[in-house]
Parts: sequence; structure tokens; C-alpha cells
Amino acid sequence: MASPGSGFWSFVSENGSADPENPGTARAWCQVAQKFTGGIGNKLCALLYRDAEKPAESDGSEPWRVAARKAVCACEQKPCSCPNADVDFALLHATDLLPACEGERPTLAFLQDVMDILLQYVVKSFDRSTKVIDFHYPNELLQEYNWELADQPQNLEEILMNCRTTLKYAIKTGHPRYFNQLSTGLDMVGLAADWLTSTANTNMFTYEIAPVFVLLEYVTLKKMREIIGWPGGSGDGIFSPGGAISNMYAMLIARFKTFPEVKEKGMAAIPRLIAFTSEHSHFSLKKGAAALGIGTDSVILIKCDERGKMIPSDLERRILEAKQNGFVPFLVSATAGTTVYGAFDPLLAIADICKKYKIWMHVDAAWGGGLLVSQKHKWKLSGVERANSVTWNPHKMMGVPLQCSALLVREEGLMQSCNQMHASYLFQQDKHYDLSYDTGDKALQCGRHVDVFKLWLMWRAKGTTGFEAQIDKCLELAEYLYNIIKNREGYEMVFDGKPQHTNVCFWYVPPSLRTLEDNEERMSRLSKVAPVIKARMMEYGATMVSYQPLGDKVNFFRMVISNPAATHQDIDFLIEEIERLGQDL
Amino acid sequence: MASPGSGFWSFVSENGSADPENPGTARAWCQVAQKFTGGIGNKLCALLYRDAEKPAESDGSEPWRVAARKAVCACEQKPCSCPNADVDFALLHATDLLPACEGERPTLAFLQDVMDILLQYVVKSFDRSTKVIDFHYPNELLQEYNWELADQPQNLEEILMNCRTTLKYAIKTGHPRYFNQLSTGLDMVGLAADWLTSTANTNMFTYEIAPVFVLLEYVTLKKMREIIGWPGGSGDGIFSPGGAISNMYAMLIARFKTFPEVKEKGMAAIPRLIAFTSEHSHFSLKKGAAALGIGTDSVILIKCDERGKMIPSDLERRILEAKQNGFVPFLVSATAGTTVYGAFDPLLAIADICKKYKIWMHVDAAWGGGLLVSQKHKWKLSGVERANSVTWNPHKMMGVPLQCSALLVREEGLMQSCNQMHASYLFQQDKHYDLSYDTGDKALQCGRHVDVFKLWLMWRAKGTTGFEAQIDKCLELAEYLYNIIKNREGYEMVFDGKPQHTNVCFWYVPPSLRTLEDNEERMSRLSKVAPVIKARMMEYGATMVSYQPLGDKVNFFRMVISNPAATHQDIDFLIEEIERLGQDL
Repeated sequence: MASPGSGFWSFVSENGSADPENPGTARAWCQVAQKFTGGIGNKLCALLYRDAEKPAESDGSEPWRVAARKAVCACEQKPCSCPNADVDFALLHATDLLPACEGERPTLAFLQDVMDILLQYVVKSFDRSTKVIDFHYPNELLQEYNWELADQPQNLEEILMNCRTTLKYAIKTGHPRYFNQLSTGLDMVGLAADWLTSTANTNMFTYEIAPVFVLLEYVTLKKMREIIGWPGGSGDGIFSPGGAISNMYAMLIARFKTFPEVKEKGMAAIPRLIAFTSEHSHFSLKKGAAALGIGTDSVILIKCDERGKMIPSDLERRILEAKQNGFVPFLVSATAGTTVYGAFDPLLAIADICKKYKIWMHVDAAWGGGLLVSQKHKWKLSGVERANSVTWNPHKMMGVPLQCSALLVREEGLMQSCNQMHASYLFQQDKHYDLSYDTGDKALQCGRHVDVFKLWLMWRAKGTTGFEAQIDKCLELAEYLYNIIKNREGYEMVFDGKPQHTNVCFWYVPPSLRTLEDNEERMSRLSKVAPVIKARMMEYGATMVSYQPLGDKVNFFRMVISNPAATHQDIDFLIEEIERLGQDL
Repeated sequence: MASPGSGFWSFVSENGSADPENPGTARAWCQVAQKFTGGIGNKLCALLYRDAEKPAESDGSEPWRVAARKAVCACEQKPCSCPNADVDFALLHATDLLPACEGERPTLAFLQDVMDILLQYVVKSFDRSTKVIDFHYPNELLQEYNWELADQPQNLEEILMNCRTTLKYAIKTGHPRYFNQLSTGLDMVGLAADWLTSTANTNMFTYEIAPVFVLLEYVTLKKMREIIGWPGGSGDGIFSPGGAISNMYAMLIARFKTFPEVKEKGMAAIPRLIAFTSEHSHFSLKKGAAALGIGTDSVILIKCDERGKMIPSDLERRILEAKQNGFVPFLVSATAGTTVYGAFDPLLAIADICKKYKIWMHVDAAWGGGLLVSQKHKWKLSGVERANSVTWNPHKMMGVPLQCSALLVREEGLMQSCNQMHASYLFQQDKHYDLSYDTGDKALQCGRHVDVFKLWLMWRAKGTTGFEAQIDKCLELAEYLYNIIKNREGYEMVFDGKPQHTNVCFWYVPPSLRTLEDNEERMSRLSKVAPVIKARMMEYGATMVSYQPLGDKVNFFRMVISNPAATHQDIDFLIEEIERLGQDL
């Protein structure tokens, strides 16, 4: 187990294990090397020096690198010829880096130093002895450090310090005990791919400037459509900046399919449209309706059963009602994996209704889509192959770094017709290559970040079977948690039965409330328990889990597991932590 | 000057310069080191080995790392104690990396190898002797390599090869001779910041999970508003996924300000709205209007003068016309830096008209916003301080890695009222910290990528004066280009006069066309020149510039400069290249 700050340097220590008590190893080697004759010593020293050990944090008295360099450069031969000896970041600025003349050496040293800081953070992220969060209130954090932007530049030593400080206060979202959001974990191949994406620094709008990434988007979306079950993986799609935007795309395309004239004429020219989604669905449906000029009042929330699944008979009733009022039902958005309960709407029954009334069927599988790669769990999405469009966020259950959200559309060409504006400065029609690869005009965005490479490289590294294994593991952990608490004293489940996704929703009832009658006062007191435990949890920093009220249920914990780093012990730890922090309430 | 593949290793070679002919340097050191007694040799070897030189590409016969390790591990002492000796990526998979047990060592070795690949790419990006692009047609590229996704995993050696191959075919967007888009260049501090952002892997919706980044967004947006000229930097804003979305936000907020009931009731409940923008404005205004249910017919394109600037009198005429028709003018989107001509609309005159008719004034300064930090050039945006909202993309003129686009809004709170949906699972009202820092509900997105850190860290590293210097330099280069070609034989300017931004628009007229009369046939032939030169340019790969038609002007080159790596010599090179590739046409 690495101790904080030493992880990276275990590489260079004698037996490969961390040795924080003996930080002088590489420097000691360097001193040995200096004794060799003929310039060899200095060159060895320079090579070794790149591996010199660094403290996790500067002690503030003197930047460690300056001090370390001074030590190294006090070599016997003057002038010192160590290649790194002149890289003193306190004397360098951004203008000394590439593309500056002679900028290569300081650039490589600087980027390597940044990388060392990042690698330390990565190692610490998986170390259960480190905190998930070093919490500070906003006003404290604003005072803790000077974050302001000035006219004059900082030197590179200060820039490195900014990086260290930023990470010091960051949430370790890869930590095995971070359960706060649907997106958790830090995948090493995904991280590498995201670094590469940053380095390639391009834009998805044309093949011309993103040839590989455009092809990889094609390959990856096709694979996802095959998994959904559309014949031959045919259809269309795009990676968009998050599930809310993917859902908005679905609504936009469904509207265009129903009334194509809306693109030119606007909503004023068409009848009033109505969309349907469950009362447990994601808020982005309403947000999208507000943005698209449909209006939130035109999003009808269909009742759910006690497990949070849409009730098909209520859907049909509301569709008929809308039609009777002269409105046009144009979209049903079913949810495969609701945000809070993790419920899967009955897609087959919903598909039948959509077919009967000729309504676009969208499936918001932002959270549940990952289950499609699991032989064991994919039945929960039976019927998804009948959808007209599907939102599927690999940055959730598949552990891809943020952001990676796909919208898949069954009918090819519709996105293009809906969104294209034929900008002649981007989509010239007389280019020398096949223009069908200039996919940018089907997007709402003009510039579009490369979100596909992370997913593609992870898929290559894991195979579909690898994703399956990590998803099955998370679901098994959720079941483990459910089995622990379902009969444990002090816990009440928010809904009965085994969870279908990794969402486990429960109240922790402190001893003082256990004997109270089930009345309003108890509910009122119970509603305050989760927020207090959560506040204490964040201040203590060892784990994080979310809570919220929902409908008539007062604040309860919503446990979700999407990080393959989590283990049974981490689940046990969470339970113990909740009890430790909440037993006096 | 680094040669391809050797850049990184100049670090370890004797005099710090690249030595592609002598790739054995570090291995040679290692062999020397092996001769030392007492285990020192092996340890030196292991340390040195991390710097061992690598060929730019594997020759395919045996992965270089495997071969190299074998060489190293054939040391005299058995069993070999080199810490790295057992890291054979051909035998390792993603499942051997963290969070795997004992995963730390392979993880660090893997990520360091990825980093070495990236550093090589960075160095090559700035090397004028390397190509900007190694162009392949889509079908060639699909056949060149197996990009498919399979059930079974690849090993880490193959994953590293995927990374190398991806970069081999990538456009070097940081190359000093890449002029193809408004976003060019590769900033070293911005790159470091983007790597850190990937590593922190969090989401902007709440302070709870992005404390530092939320504060930095606050600090940075405030600074941008101060520069715009809003008193005390007050107001609101957000970083959004690109300028098109930022412009759509402006339209959305302007509509909400005019008719707040649209959020619930939709467009059907309000009068017909009309937006105004110039005929040279960005296509995202129409795209936004289509999406928001306003309809593209309700976006009136105002005439421009010969320099591409909106004509205020035509704006006023069209506003009056719309009002006479009973429509409601709700938005004027002026452009500060048009996409093709780089024109700045007359903001003061437009502001007067907006004030007179009480219309929301938006300024799309996605491209021109950067000029606000230049004392010399900011006058071109005079009047921007009177706007109600401003789009400003630091990923364009300020050289921030993609994506980084800000929408700034003068009235505080409006974004929140317009977009909020009060999702109780994210924005719990009983949290223990100041909830005004939970900024996610003002966004259209739910999950939102951290786009601010790149800009913030670059600003710290350059200071405002550093941005100013690099922007002034790009504008000076554009003027240099203009001065070269304005009177040069074979060139015709698309519009007269010195460019206001870095856009220089021109036709190259090959010798065969120079004596032709100015008639339709000449225009028809001239329209084919730029596409052919561009196609040849891409196949040759040494530089890239964009072309397009506009209105009645046939295909012309649009040169833009946003990369501070470019020099006068690069401008000269572009001109020579155009002539070399086009003289026979």
C-alpha cells in the first residue's frame, strides 16, 4: 500500500516499495554518479535526476525543486553540465515553454513535473487511507489561497503550486469510497485516453481536422446500436455534452419528425405538442421542453408504481386525454435506470403504446444503458430495440471519464435534416474526400469536443466482456448492501425488494427515533437525519453518499455504485460510517 | 531542432540535442552501469531504463519495449532486480492496472509510457520539418488499421500502439503552419491544465463535488465581465460546450426576459418573436432559433457593408418592419469578429437601436472577444459594455485548449430563473454550505465538463499582459500577410483595406487565369482553384488553410492566425506553398 506522496517514487527505491522515510535515494545515486570521470558522472546524474524524489507538499520554506537543484548542481565539475541543472521553474515563465526557442527542454521538464503531480494524485485516489475530500466552506477556500487573476504572470514554480493546491482541495472521484454521484471511479485507460484527447486538441466537426476521431465515433456508435439491437447496427447518433443534451436532442428530433416545418416556422406554426415521461424521470426532459419552446406544462408526468416504474395504463390514459384536448402527443420518454430509484420502465408495454398511437419512443438509458453489455442484466432493458432513440451515457455505468454521452437514433439522416445549416466555411461541398464523414452539421453544437476516444480505447482495453465484468460487479455490490441493511436494526428501505440497478435507497433511523410512532413528527425529525450525517461525512471526508427527498418520502440516502474499485469492505465501511456519524441524532 | 521521434530523447543524449542516428545512448549508459558492483549497476540501470530511447514507431517484428526489456534483463546477476523488469505490457491488461491489487507499479509504468508518447507528439507538433497532417482518405484509414471493438480485451502493449496510431493520423493542431480553423495552437500550460482536469474527473453541477472549479469559474467569469466593462464585474455567466451553445443560451435568456411565461407555456402562448443578426453572422443563430422553436424564418439577416459589418440603418428598418407586422423583436445578435471576414459590427450604433426599441442586445464575440485584453485592439469592440449578453470563446483567440466558451450575462439571476428545475437529488436545500455555489441549475446541461481550469491556469501563467502580447502578435502577423499579398501578382483581396482581425481573405489567381476577362467563365474557373490547392495541400501535408464561398464571392482562401507559434516565415511559407501547388491550374 502506498503512503501519500510516496507512490510514484516506489518506482525508484531499492526494492520497489514505498520508502517515505528515506527520500534521498535518487539523490544519493546521483552523488555516487558524480564521482565517475570523463563527464559520465554528470550525465548519469542528469538522467537520474529526472527521477529525484519529491515531497508530497512543499514545506513552504523553499520550493523543493530549487533546493533539490542546488544540491545536485553543487557538483565537483564547474560549470555544471547537467541537462536539467538550468531548469529552475522559479525563474521560468510560460513564455519559456514551447513554442519558444530552446523551449523543448523546459517544456518537457515542466510537463513531466505536472505528470508527477498527477500520478501522485492518481495513486492517492485509490488509497483508502486518504480522504475522499478535504472539505472547506466556500468562504474558507476563497481565503485559503489567492485564486485571483492578475495582469502579470506567475512563474512556473507557482503554476506547479497552483496545480498541487487545486488537487489538494479536489474531490477524489476515483476513491473507492466515493459514492456520491452516478459517475464515479477513475479508469486508468480512460484517463490515458483523455490525456491523449487533450494533446490532440481538435474538434469533431469535420473529417478534415479529426479524421481518426470521426471514424472512431462511427465505429463506436455503430457498436452501441448493435448492442441496442438495431439490425446491423444501422442508424445514427452523436456524442453530446451530457445526458440532458442527449435527451434534448431526442425531443428535438422527435418534434422535427412529426412536424418538419417547425425548423423554419417555429412552434407557432404547429399544433400544441405533448411529451410524456414518468414522474421519476430525469429533470432534463422538462428542461429540454422549456428550452425548445414546448413548455414544461406540455410534459405530462406519468404515474409510477411503488418501485418507480412508469405505469403503462396511466400513460395510455394521458395520451388519450391529450388527443381529446386536440393536442399532439409526439414523444414518450421511458427511463431505463431512474436517477434515484434506479428503476427500469416497462419498455415493451410502452413500445406497444407508442406503436399504437404512432408516437416517437425515446429511452433515457443514461444511467441504465451500461447494463446492455451484461448477459445477466440486459433483460431489464427488453424492448429498448423498439425505441426510436436512446440516450446512453458511458460516463456513468461504464466508468468512462466525464463527459461521454451518446444519443443513438434509429432512423438515419434525421439528425442531419433536423439540424443542418450548411455553413459553407466548414462543410464545403467541393472537398476531395467523402463528405458523409463531415458529421458536424448534424449537431446542435458547432465546435464539438472529442468525447469518443476515451470510450473507444477503454473498449479496446477491456473488451465488451471487461465492461460486463465490472458492471456485474457493481450490481453484485449493490445487492450485498441491500442484503446487509434490509433486516438490520436502524434501517428502513424506501422501496421493497432487491434493487434492479445499483441504487439502494434507505433511511438510517437513529436510536432516538426508533421507538417513535410513525407520525408527522417522526417524519420531520427523520428528514433532518440524512443532511446532518452528510454534513458530518463531508467534514470528516472518509466517504460520500447522496441523499434527497422524493415525492412524499422525506430525505433518504441514495447509494449508487459505479466504481469498480469499490469492494464489500467499502460497503461495510459506509454503513459503519453512517452509524458512527448518526447514532447520536 | 528535434527530428521526429527523437524529440523527447534529446533530454538524455549527450549534448541535449537530438541524435536520431545514435539511438543507443541510454541503453549504452545502462550497459556501463551494469558493470558496477554491489547491485548498484542494476539499480542505476533500472533508473536509466525509464529514459531508454524508443523508436517513433515499432517495426512490427517485436514490440520495442519487450525487446528492450529482454536486453536490459540479460544482466549478469540473476534473478534480475530491475524494478521495471517485470513490466511487460504485452502480458498485461487493463485489469492489471489500478485499482487492481499490486496495480500501482504497472499503472505508473503504463501512464508514464503514454505520457512519453504524448510528449513526443507535443515536440513534433512544433517541429516545422514534420507534416501538419498525414492525410488518408476515409476508406484508406479504415483499412490501414483495425479500429473495431471486440468482445475480448487487447493487452496494454496493443493499447499503447493504438495511442501511437491515433496520433500518427491526427492533425497537428499546434503546428505553426496549421491555419485551418479559428482554434489553433497548443498551449503548454493549457495542456497541463487539461490533463489535470481529466485526472480530477469531476462535474460542475455542485460545489459539493467541484469546490475549487466552481470557485475558479466564479473568479474567471467575474474577471471576464470586468474586462467587458460591466461595473465591478457584476453579472452572471457560465462556461458552455462551445460558441453555438453560448449563443443559444443568449437567445433562450432573451426570450425568457421578454416573456417569462414561455418556460411553462411554450411558444404557443406568446406572440411571434423575431431575432436580428447580420448576413455574415455565425450559423449558430439560425441553428439556435430552429432548436428553440422560434424557427429560422424568424431570424432576420441584416445587410452588411463591403467589409462584412452590419448596417445599422438596415437593422432599424427591419425592426420597424417586424413591429408593423405585429411581431416582437426580442434579440439583436451583433458579431464581434465574424467567422469569415473577421468583421466587427458597429456595437455602439447597434446598442443605441436596441435601447430605443428595448431589445436584448447580444454580442457574439466568440472569435473577437480575445481582443478585449489588448490595449491596442479593444476599441474594435467599443460598445460591448452595453450588451445584455456576450459570447466569448477563450478556445479561439486566447489559445485555450478545446473547449472553453463563456456566455456572460449582465443581469444576475436571470439564467437561474430561466433554466432551473430544482432537482432535489442534486440541489438539496438543506445542505450545510452556501447554496449559491451550487451553480448547476442555471445550465441547460445537467452534468457539465470542467472547462474553466485551462483558462484559469493559463491566465495565472501569462497574466492579462501575456494574453495581450500573444494576441497582438497574431494580429501583427495578419497585417504582415495582408501587406505581402495586397499588391503581389496573382492575388486579389476579397475586401479592401487592412484586416481588423486576423482574417485575411484572398483569391490566388493562377497565371492561366490572370489575363482572362472578368466574366462568368473566369469566376467559374476561379471557384475551382482553392479546392484543388487545398486538396493538394492536404495530401502534401505541410500546411493547412481554409477556403469557402460567401454570398456572390466564389471560393476564396480565408487565412486566420490564432497560434502564437506562427512566425513571419510561416506566413511566407504558406504563400509559397499556395503558389507552388496552384501555379499550374
